[in-house]
Amino acid sequence: MKVSLLFSGGKDSSLSALLLEPFFDVELVTCTFGLTEAWRSAHEAASMLGFAHRVVALPHEILDGCTAMLLEDGFPHNAIKFVHYRAVEHLVKNGAKLVADGTRLNDRVPKLTYDELQSLEYRYGSCIIRPLMGYSKPAVMALVRRYFEIEENESDMIDKADYETEIRHVIRERYGSEKVRELFPHHTQSRVILRKR
Amino acid sequence: MKVSLLFSGGKDSSLSALLLEPFFDVELVTCTFGLTEAWRSAHEAASMLGFAHRVVALPHEILDGCTAMLLEDGFPHNAIKFVHYRAVEHLVKNGAKLVADGTRLNDRVPKLTYDELQSLEYRYGSCIIRPLMGYSKPAVMALVRRYFEIEENESDMIDKADYETEIRHVIRERYGSEKVRELFPHHTQSRVILRKR
Repeated sequence: MKVSLLFSGGKDSSLSALLLEPFFDVELVTCTFGLTEAWRSAHEAASMLGFAHRVVALPHEILDGCTAMLLEDGFPHNAIKFVHYRAVEHLVKNGAKLVADGTRLNDRVPKLTYDELQSLEYRYGSCIIRPLMGYSKPAVMALVRRYFEIEENESDMIDKADYETEIRHVIRERYGSEKVRELFPHHTQSRVILRKR
Repeated sequence: MKVSLLFSGGKDSSLSALLLEPFFDVELVTCTFGLTEAWRSAHEAASMLGFAHRVVALPHEILDGCTAMLLEDGFPHNAIKFVHYRAVEHLVKNGAKLVADGTRLNDRVPKLTYDELQSLEYRYGSCIIRPLMGYSKPAVMALVRRYFEIEENESDMIDKADYETEIRHVIRERYGSEKVRELFPHHTQSRVILRKR
């Protein structure tokens, strides 16, 4: 069974890939609006982990909806959730029967709600798998330490292909760096640099 | 890392064992109040699947609390949830650092609430893992068909070591078979009979 796993190169999507690997034919998928080359770091991470990797271009209307939401809210949570929902929908609309993501039980963003999940599954006849939904943070961290070496840094300093990277880029281009600092709270992100065998 | 997985011999706890197998040292645990030999069918299923198996005697006060709740409610949901919560608590209280169960995203019973899970994790410094929480029913069934042959039947006809078996037994002993039919709704259960390699 083939599963398309949304992949940023971070520890959560990387660990999800490992958990699915023994049971599925796993393809890692990185979405892009084509504004940056951020997907390249995900491509390198996928090769290092030993998985097939595909880059998927998302329609720009998703980016427009997302930036409008971000400017309206003054905070990125809903905008990032919106992009994630639409990214999953894009994959299932285009025929993916099994789509997976790396959201964890304790996540708020960009975790799909139960209603969103059921809506996607019923409307498109697909399944959404979230391997880390059964693991709380300490168990995730124990597995991450066992299987990876990771690099952690401020989210604007890390070479990673999550939705935030391109949304920051478009805000910087249109409104300047000050606006990026205003809209995005400081938080640390991780990137996987080695798979321990 | 050793994980103790609560195990009935049904498809959900069996599939959970398979999903954990590549990453953990999995021990299957079947709880009993010592009233029936139902644990034997779980023991046989564990051997057939190729896992270590341990039978754990639960204190009778849990059974007393459960039967009181069942008679009060006239319906088994809360009583079964109560036993499950106390079974997980019994394992973590007695030193298990990682405890797993086979509850699914779509389950209502005996799925722990987020608050119950956090309470158990924080109070005892343990982790509760629920491998199927990231899978909705169609994905679970696809994996079950891939990895198992199962037998399905009415829950009172199936040889399985879930909490219901012993609770039914004690109600039958104390109040007769009519009371069992009154308290437990008809539903089908499954038992794994073969692991496809």
